[in-house]
Amino acid sequence: MNTFDGFTPMARIEVVIDGELLPAVRDHLLASGATGFTAVNGVAGFGHHGEHAGRLLFNDRNSLSLVISVVPLDRVQTVVNGIRDLLDHHHGVVFVSQTHVSRADYFEPRRDTHD
Amino acid sequence: MNTFDGFTPMARIEVVIDGELLPAVRDHLLASGATGFTAVNGVAGFGHHGEHAGRLLFNDRNSLSLVISVVPLDRVQTVVNGIRDLLDHHHGVVFVSQTHVSRADYFEPRRDTHD
Amino acid sequence: MNTFDGFTPMARIEVVIDGELLPAVRDHLLASGATGFTAVNGVAGFGHHGEHAGRLLFNDRNSLSLVISVVPLDRVQTVVNGIRDLLDHHHGVVFVSQTHVSRADYFEPRRDTHD
Repeated sequence: MNTFDGFTPMARIEVVIDGELLPAVRDHLLASGATGFTAVNGVAGFGHHGEHAGRLLFNDRNSLSLVISVVPLDRVQTVVNGIRDLLDHHHGVVFVSQTHVSRADYFEPRRDTHD
Repeated sequence: MNTFDGFTPMARIEVVIDGELLPAVRDHLLASGATGFTAVNGVAGFGHHGEHAGRLLFNDRNSLSLVISVVPLDRVQTVVNGIRDLLDHHHGVVFVSQTHVSRADYFEPRRDTHD
Repeated sequence: MNTFDGFTPMARIEVVIDGELLPAVRDHLLASGATGFTAVNGVAGFGHHGEHAGRLLFNDRNSLSLVISVVPLDRVQTVVNGIRDLLDHHHGVVFVSQTHVSRADYFEPRRDTHD
């Protein structure tokens, strides 16, 4: 049996933002088809290009949130575009990785709500 | 030299559960061949399908744990099956991603203990 | 449109170490081309091979840090080699996964600084 047999590929979206932006990120995630998220609060961060280029995004603090949301692959562009709009006006970073889930239905938006 | 030359592919299993389930998850991980784990406690979460379908798994709280364990690829099915049994009776999600380690021996179960 | 169209592949380096090593990890990351990092402090951990082989790396505590840094693929070997040197003398683990970012310039070291 292969490693990921029986699993459904999904995208794991991670956003590091100021904790005060968490409600905005949450609202965007849920509006764009994510069915849930996990938030680690009180996270410290540094960078990117902070010291080097005078473009300080984060400095060591414990006021950041790391938000993780797993969404169907066809939602990535929509979810990330919205996060990017937020990050045009606020410090933060977003990255997207492939992951796999065993209960795909937990992560699929209801078709009548989101489509 | 390629990006992951010299690294061994492994599976990164992430489980988000109620903090009180952490001992059960830990026992299962160690019994099924994981040699260690990392737990981030005090994590908030929301979803999946919470608001949408009346099937509330998590609501914003800070009582969740995010457990990360890196295991050999041939252990994924066993580890996840046990986690899934736990999640049949409790709220939570599990997802699995590919990762790479430089010291594979740290993550390999001792053959006499686990096989 | 494909899932990761418009994104740049990067490496997501995760290090779990004793919190007191965080400054050393940070200095190494920034010196070897990372432009930033995120640190989750107060993390618990167990293993690897702790109970099994008398080679205790972590025991349940809340004094660990999980450091996440996203770096260009061609920096992986340099960054990880330095982390490995640290871990030769201290407990800890490192793992590396593929991820994708939408703003690659945030994660690229300035050429005059690092090359």
